[in-house]
Amino acid sequence: MSKCAITFRPGRRKIEVEREENILETAIAAGIHINASCGGSGTCGKCKVKIVGGKTRSAQNPKLSKREFDKGYRLACITSCLSDLEVEIPIESQVDPSVLRLKREGRYLLSPRDIDQLVEGWEIDPAVFKRYIELDPPTLDENVSDLTRLVNALYKEYGIRGISTDFRVIMKLSRLLREAEWKVTATLVLTRKGYKLINVEPGNVACENYSIVIDLGTTTVFGQLLNLNKAEVCGFPNGMGTVALAEASDYNGQISYGEDVISRIVYSQRPGGLQKLQEVIISTVNGIIEDLLRMSGIKRDLVSHLVIAGNTTMTHIFLGLDPKYIREDPYVPTADFIPPVRAVHLGVDLGDHVHIYIFPMVASYMGGDIVSGILGSGIFQREALTLYMDIGTNGEIVLGNRDWLMSASCSAGPAFEGAGIKFGTRATRGAIERVNINPNTFEPMLLTIGRAKPIGICGSGLIDTLAELFQGDIIDQNGKFKRELDTDRVREGRDGYEYVLAWKKETGIKKDIVLTEIDIESLIRTKAAIFAGCKILLDSADLRFQDVKQFLIAGAFGHSIDLDKAICIGLLPEVDTDKYLFVGNGSLLGARLLSFSKDLLRETERIAHMMTNLELSNNPAFMSEFVAAMFLPHTDTSVFPEVTERLQEYQRAKAAYAP
Amino acid sequence: MSKCAITFRPGRRKIEVEREENILETAIAAGIHINASCGGSGTCGKCKVKIVGGKTRSAQNPKLSKREFDKGYRLACITSCLSDLEVEIPIESQVDPSVLRLKREGRYLLSPRDIDQLVEGWEIDPAVFKRYIELDPPTLDENVSDLTRLVNALYKEYGIRGISTDFRVIMKLSRLLREAEWKVTATLVLTRKGYKLINVEPGNVACENYSIVIDLGTTTVFGQLLNLNKAEVCGFPNGMGTVALAEASDYNGQISYGEDVISRIVYSQRPGGLQKLQEVIISTVNGIIEDLLRMSGIKRDLVSHLVIAGNTTMTHIFLGLDPKYIREDPYVPTADFIPPVRAVHLGVDLGDHVHIYIFPMVASYMGGDIVSGILGSGIFQREALTLYMDIGTNGEIVLGNRDWLMSASCSAGPAFEGAGIKFGTRATRGAIERVNINPNTFEPMLLTIGRAKPIGICGSGLIDTLAELFQGDIIDQNGKFKRELDTDRVREGRDGYEYVLAWKKETGIKKDIVLTEIDIESLIRTKAAIFAGCKILLDSADLRFQDVKQFLIAGAFGHSIDLDKAICIGLLPEVDTDKYLFVGNGSLLGARLLSFSKDLLRETERIAHMMTNLELSNNPAFMSEFVAAMFLPHTDTSVFPEVTERLQEYQRAKAAYAP
Repeated sequence: MSKCAITFRPGRRKIEVEREENILETAIAAGIHINASCGGSGTCGKCKVKIVGGKTRSAQNPKLSKREFDKGYRLACITSCLSDLEVEIPIESQVDPSVLRLKREGRYLLSPRDIDQLVEGWEIDPAVFKRYIELDPPTLDENVSDLTRLVNALYKEYGIRGISTDFRVIMKLSRLLREAEWKVTATLVLTRKGYKLINVEPGNVACENYSIVIDLGTTTVFGQLLNLNKAEVCGFPNGMGTVALAEASDYNGQISYGEDVISRIVYSQRPGGLQKLQEVIISTVNGIIEDLLRMSGIKRDLVSHLVIAGNTTMTHIFLGLDPKYIREDPYVPTADFIPPVRAVHLGVDLGDHVHIYIFPMVASYMGGDIVSGILGSGIFQREALTLYMDIGTNGEIVLGNRDWLMSASCSAGPAFEGAGIKFGTRATRGAIERVNINPNTFEPMLLTIGRAKPIGICGSGLIDTLAELFQGDIIDQNGKFKRELDTDRVREGRDGYEYVLAWKKETGIKKDIVLTEIDIESLIRTKAAIFAGCKILLDSADLRFQDVKQFLIAGAFGHSIDLDKAICIGLLPEVDTDKYLFVGNGSLLGARLLSFSKDLLRETERIAHMMTNLELSNNPAFMSEFVAAMFLPHTDTSVFPEVTERLQEYQRAKAAYAP
Repeated sequence: MSKCAITFRPGRRKIEVEREENILETAIAAGIHINASCGGSGTCGKCKVKIVGGKTRSAQNPKLSKREFDKGYRLACITSCLSDLEVEIPIESQVDPSVLRLKREGRYLLSPRDIDQLVEGWEIDPAVFKRYIELDPPTLDENVSDLTRLVNALYKEYGIRGISTDFRVIMKLSRLLREAEWKVTATLVLTRKGYKLINVEPGNVACENYSIVIDLGTTTVFGQLLNLNKAEVCGFPNGMGTVALAEASDYNGQISYGEDVISRIVYSQRPGGLQKLQEVIISTVNGIIEDLLRMSGIKRDLVSHLVIAGNTTMTHIFLGLDPKYIREDPYVPTADFIPPVRAVHLGVDLGDHVHIYIFPMVASYMGGDIVSGILGSGIFQREALTLYMDIGTNGEIVLGNRDWLMSASCSAGPAFEGAGIKFGTRATRGAIERVNINPNTFEPMLLTIGRAKPIGICGSGLIDTLAELFQGDIIDQNGKFKRELDTDRVREGRDGYEYVLAWKKETGIKKDIVLTEIDIESLIRTKAAIFAGCKILLDSADLRFQDVKQFLIAGAFGHSIDLDKAICIGLLPEVDTDKYLFVGNGSLLGARLLSFSKDLLRETERIAHMMTNLELSNNPAFMSEFVAAMFLPHTDTSVFPEVTERLQEYQRAKAAYAP
């Protein structure tokens, strides 16, 4: 695709974008404000801009008269650039250039291929593999058992020793070998106890070997189907397993039984509760498997491996293990290293030879998803000190490098996933994901997922809103609304003061969408917990943020957050933003890599064993750090010098600009 | 019990017996003839003897008048000795002393304790064992998972490394540990892949650890229940596992589907046939388990291990494996080394933690029962060259010592188990088990099992009858009846010539019980196969019978056969009878030993690997040896010099005695 340059006036900020890029999206990504309340659905008509030069494509819209359209006015939200453009932002949207924060440049969004290259130097050698073998038929002089014949041949031909055999293979072996005229494909899996023969198929199907990897999230379950024999197509070893044949995801069906792991555990303690929750998650996983098979056209029987990475609670429930004690002091899981479990035993719809690899867990709140993330992000093999943060429901943090790993879970709560926030929502269609607020007029500029009418605010929208309210001086450092502002956007509602992001008529839910002071308190509490967790982890290793060479942000969430805004509210530490890398779904990334390499399977076990988990509950140092972080951006301004300085500059500029 | 001496007149043979010993049984054991056709049931009245001196106990009987009783006449079959006795055999029973074969002395019947001492020098250290452990409860500072806590403690306390865990243990672990207040007993099993944690129980039950061992015979299934913690009571290490807490046996329920393995395999190929046969054998095993538990009063849950030793076909059917190819050239079993199988998966009524150890097999007709026999009889650890013979349905032979083992299966057929013999029967109540025939009058002396009216002839009775017919010159060396004999016992029946062992009125089946020429041919065929098998095995190792230091005869059958008679017909080679040892049920013996020792478990695997099986079908040398042995005792008289000489002596004596 060719590039186009969009120049916004006033300010003459020139932004290079792909051809066909949406103008509103370009503006918001560049931190340029254009009023827009409907999230980009084309219904509020506020994002009117004038195309001064260049070619665009834009639909007609009732919010724009024929006369305006002819004069070059367009709704930015439904307009894309077809050439270099010059775009004039109308006066009612304009922000004084002097108070415009310049978005710092910084390449912290990697392509999927770049992300796969975090882990390097490993050979493709899947833990579940197929080997074609032609056996000599038995004779009276040499009539060892069928199984011994096969096992001996696997040793002779491929040097595989000490094979144990799944009883189901033995059940069908004799007839199959003869029907296949002694030419068969054996499937083997490497377990903690050595090689296990799990399947035998007639003929040569060694080239048809697939794996499904699942990220078992509390809210969302992601799955990918991989061709274990086609890793070279993905550029392996430098991009091991980049390309999945199919991807699918679905909400975890357990959502109806509680938003977070704690409420799921509570539900599991009701009569039949655990069984119900297990059924529901298995059903979600089966649905994803169904989708993956349909999308890829791969036959169910050709899937040889299922890899599951989930947090400790989800993993327990998936396996039918009582999660009760995860929640009770001193927070002990039943097991962290799970033996291979047969898929059919759990009711998972895959061939009866499929054994599930469950990522090992570290503690009640440090699960297999994080171990997988550490694998996928390559920390375990690099010398550079790295801080890995998975900002999901819980806020898990891992600090370390190839020699040591420490972890902590922050009990941050799911506020950034929208839970417990009045108009919070998951990252779904209509969720407000980008927010700018005009610091002069307090009018917002919103983008929603799918550019649908707003229905609520998702994580990145919450970070944006909080940061914009704070930077726009609409709330103070405690998160309390300033009350003398000349705008109807800030008002006293039923739950106290609140900011109106979208008016009833512009939304998809026929209600004003607001962010309340109570919501803000939840968000501050959450960001404080995460920041305090990072701080404690560093303190306990006698290190400072400056010592960390790389900050890896994981979570589906991670992809869409605005780094500057996240730093501005004190969620992420203020360091050189070049040090930040968003790895996306780290859990799925690790699960994918593990599928392709026996050595990485062994590394995974090593990672889980190596990780020292710091228990933060009842930790007085953590409590004190937490309290210090309950401020925007932080009680100690020296921790956020640049944010502080920018705010001060802004205050000065605003004072100067004030009429 | 005190000893008594019984002196028989004429001949003055003095036999020392236990007090209360039965007179007819004593006579037959000593080779002294007393006519007796009803098998010892007291109905024919033919075994009338006169007690000349000493005290006896004997019931009144209608076959004996008051006057005879007062004069000291008794029916030998219902009379036992209470002191030293002098017994006069009536004239009609008497055999000329000059033709009496003297039973050679020879201690070849070991006590159970002696038999256990065949295997020596191993420590008691069961493969399934329990360990009591008190765990430190978790704290916030030390909150590893429950499973890791337990596994670490097992290592720290008992040095057990590399434990894998059964998923069912994980399922119940958390609740159980807490309810048991962290004091539990772990059950571990040593498998080919290392230690596996299979159960956890509250409190200290380490002293309650039981095993069940099963000999899975084609005809009969034997079981024993062992206390794995009480081996020292049994005199271990010199009498490891002698005493079972309970013993039970039952016919293999599959008998209705065929007498031998071949007919079972044929049945298994019918639709649903295999499943039916498996159900039936599992049901037989469950019945035995039920009996063992009832008899011992041991709770089902306390049984931790099940050990199965069976021939290859029985093992396959028990496991639900298709035995089809066992029967088809080149006779290949599906598997010889079977991974541990969970008892509940096969429908065996034991705790769901119980894993079944299946004795490894060597070939289609060299099964786990023989491997177990080799273990139990200690051949694998002795330097002395040994020939092990299991004369059951098949006739399996093993030759070797601690350094090498060769085996062969003779396809002998089940004639000595009574199958295919007109009045053949299993060793059940009423089966004729001992036979003497008066060489002058051709009148028989019979003993039946349970001293009931005869219903048929079992294996030892068949050997005896054949030997007596041959020694009494009633049949020739080809097994054909001599036709000029002055007796109504030999007659031409519907199936050709036959000998009447019991008349209709004396039997429990209201039919004359006979042995026909066709039966005799079957028996000769069978003994020829076994003898030829032994010969070929020795030949292929370039050895002779004289080189063998010990002949071990296994099989329930083995206990009751008359060694001299078995040699006389050429079933067993003619060597110094001191070299013979009857080990009884060798399969059960080995299974018992294996239960008590990890090292013997490893030895078992070594034995199965070490055993080289010689395929006799289509082996021309075997065919030629077989044909040579189709003669009584053998075509080559130099192979049986003593038998030949005794026969010649007998012929001479008879000729001299002839009127």
